[in-house]
Amino acid sequence: MNQLDLMQQLSIKGTTKIVLLVIDGVGGLPKEPGGLTELETAHTPNLDALAARSACGLSTPVAPGITPGSGPGHLALFGYDPLQFELGRGVLEALGIGFELQPKDVAIRGNFCTVDAQGLITDRRAGRISTEECAKRVALLRAIQLPGVQCFVEPVKDYRFALVLRGDGLGADIADTDPQQVGKAPLPAVARSQGSQRTAELVNQWLAQAQRILADHPPANMCTLRGFSVDPGLPKFSSVYKLKAAAVAVYPMYKGVARLVGMEVLPVSGETPADEFETVRQHWEAYDFFFVHIKKTDSAGEDGNFEAKVHVIESVDQALPALLELKPDVLVVTGDHSTPCMIKSHSWHALPVLLHARTARSNPVSGFSESGCLAGSLGHIRHVDIMPLAMAHALRLNKFGA
Amino acid sequence: MNQLDLMQQLSIKGTTKIVLLVIDGVGGLPKEPGGLTELETAHTPNLDALAARSACGLSTPVAPGITPGSGPGHLALFGYDPLQFELGRGVLEALGIGFELQPKDVAIRGNFCTVDAQGLITDRRAGRISTEECAKRVALLRAIQLPGVQCFVEPVKDYRFALVLRGDGLGADIADTDPQQVGKAPLPAVARSQGSQRTAELVNQWLAQAQRILADHPPANMCTLRGFSVDPGLPKFSSVYKLKAAAVAVYPMYKGVARLVGMEVLPVSGETPADEFETVRQHWEAYDFFFVHIKKTDSAGEDGNFEAKVHVIESVDQALPALLELKPDVLVVTGDHSTPCMIKSHSWHALPVLLHARTARSNPVSGFSESGCLAGSLGHIRHVDIMPLAMAHALRLNKFGA
Repeated sequence: MNQLDLMQQLSIKGTTKIVLLVIDGVGGLPKEPGGLTELETAHTPNLDALAARSACGLSTPVAPGITPGSGPGHLALFGYDPLQFELGRGVLEALGIGFELQPKDVAIRGNFCTVDAQGLITDRRAGRISTEECAKRVALLRAIQLPGVQCFVEPVKDYRFALVLRGDGLGADIADTDPQQVGKAPLPAVARSQGSQRTAELVNQWLAQAQRILADHPPANMCTLRGFSVDPGLPKFSSVYKLKAAAVAVYPMYKGVARLVGMEVLPVSGETPADEFETVRQHWEAYDFFFVHIKKTDSAGEDGNFEAKVHVIESVDQALPALLELKPDVLVVTGDHSTPCMIKSHSWHALPVLLHARTARSNPVSGFSESGCLAGSLGHIRHVDIMPLAMAHALRLNKFGA
Repeated sequence: MNQLDLMQQLSIKGTTKIVLLVIDGVGGLPKEPGGLTELETAHTPNLDALAARSACGLSTPVAPGITPGSGPGHLALFGYDPLQFELGRGVLEALGIGFELQPKDVAIRGNFCTVDAQGLITDRRAGRISTEECAKRVALLRAIQLPGVQCFVEPVKDYRFALVLRGDGLGADIADTDPQQVGKAPLPAVARSQGSQRTAELVNQWLAQAQRILADHPPANMCTLRGFSVDPGLPKFSSVYKLKAAAVAVYPMYKGVARLVGMEVLPVSGETPADEFETVRQHWEAYDFFFVHIKKTDSAGEDGNFEAKVHVIESVDQALPALLELKPDVLVVTGDHSTPCMIKSHSWHALPVLLHARTARSNPVSGFSESGCLAGSLGHIRHVDIMPLAMAHALRLNKFGA
């Protein structure tokens, strides 16, 4: 039996409350071998004290050696095996800009490119035009109409945009039109199965019109389309866990992934950890589960800014008492993945996890950090284990078998 | 390849002896956060000394967060993934009272209930009548006869009884007759597949007769039937592990689960750990493998009686030298699951495991306890890993591949 089915079978309603605090990219590496990581450098008296009174461990996001994107990292945290439930690139692009996808929408990632007089690609990224230039061309592309289908075009960043098609009977089983190399013409959209045949034809109509519109706007005088996909229809938190769940996040991508699993997204005034915790306080009575997402640790990690990442971690620690005052029955603190400043990108490294609950077997760990949690009572787990553990410690799971 | 197939392929006969000592519900929690668990409180000089000379670790019974019933907990200890091999409730109920199920028997759990003049259920548990009252009605129900089928009716506890049907061509794919709420009439037995059609008809005949017999015996004036099931036909220890295996247990449920995997159940004089170890000694030469089950730790845990649980653990420790004197080649000590007094029920928490063998990589752990075994050389494992480890340390597994 797979894990979600098992959760659906065993989960029961209750009055206990669970908070999942995700400090994006919190895991890291030292600047120099043998040194301290960002988290070990940060002064975090509140997290350290909490760790000693909690069950701690190290958690691997997806599988050893696998660096997750934000989508898979969060699906795993929510208990959905990202190797089983894949999110299409088009869907992630649409979620990332806050586009509210409807269940049957086909979402597509678009790349502006440069083509020569023969229509052959000379630059797959159109000289990395600015987001502003991108937006101007997107405004032109909005004029394209297709029979019986609504077309939404939105700028993303630089040369990237999102295209969403909404209508009846659309399919997303369509190959990318990007030939992946210069010197070739963009490919036509080709359906990989019968149910996407008509959609591929519509996409080709859209591309023909886009070609005419963009012809006079070099360097972005053409575009390619990738990652045709639809909302994967994930089972929702209300049915899997019988939880009324809310998401507290500042960035669109995380609100989007939370919506995919049925969380309600709460409005946040401001964007500091303290602001986000205040949002939790305001809605405390209305929900069983809060997913709280802190973004800026990851941003600092991707910038390679060690001190900035340390500072964001410290700001979370300083705000933490406000969250603890709510006395959640279960509080989990971890990240979706590591983002070591030394690598300047997401990484595969396991990251510390802390589970605080009256029912947790605590351990005298030295603090909330990569090395501190090594001796924790949870041992080494995976992100998909976190929700079952949180549910168990909240006494929201029935016994399995008699 | 699944684990049992792998074991069957690699296992070889030998002269080494394995003892699996299961201290039921041995894992626990402190009374107050930061305190000592039952096992950490108990004075266990023999277990502690053994742990330091053994390979130790923490073992998760089924999966993180999952609390197993006794059936799944033991299947996992025996190396059978309980998510793959599910035991029906009727089978567990029959095993629990020591009923010797035959391979094709259909076992059913019965609940006495109270119905009003219209036949609608007013109490699904018949006012929780005593086991004595239950037995009186069971005696009446034994008069029911069905064509070509033997009916066994046995009291279990309070309002619960077991019904076993024995005959040719019976099926157990039948939905529960308990409507799960008051104000409704018991449902007729309905087959969920063709092969159980005739059995459902027989069950309805049985129910009609039961209704007439019970009508004059309120509050238990009717009954519902649940968990129709048969012996799942598990692969046996003799073929999977090539072990001649014996079970030493005092309570019927554990003898029953042991029989399902092909163990012979040995008679025990008395019911203390020392009595059980003496049984092992008496049959030492005749078997390769001994499953020894200590029940009262779990009972004390379920009662929330911390001191009683500590006392049972100490009684196991005191008796242990008698087991060690037999010099088993491999001795594993663990539990089927945790039963923290603080929760008064089975729980999901990982529990200490100790594997003593000449071939084991020992570790300087501080003792046999939840915290003591955290630094053990086995790390964090799962219960289904224990039998392969025991077999390997007994030098009873061939190399995999060349």
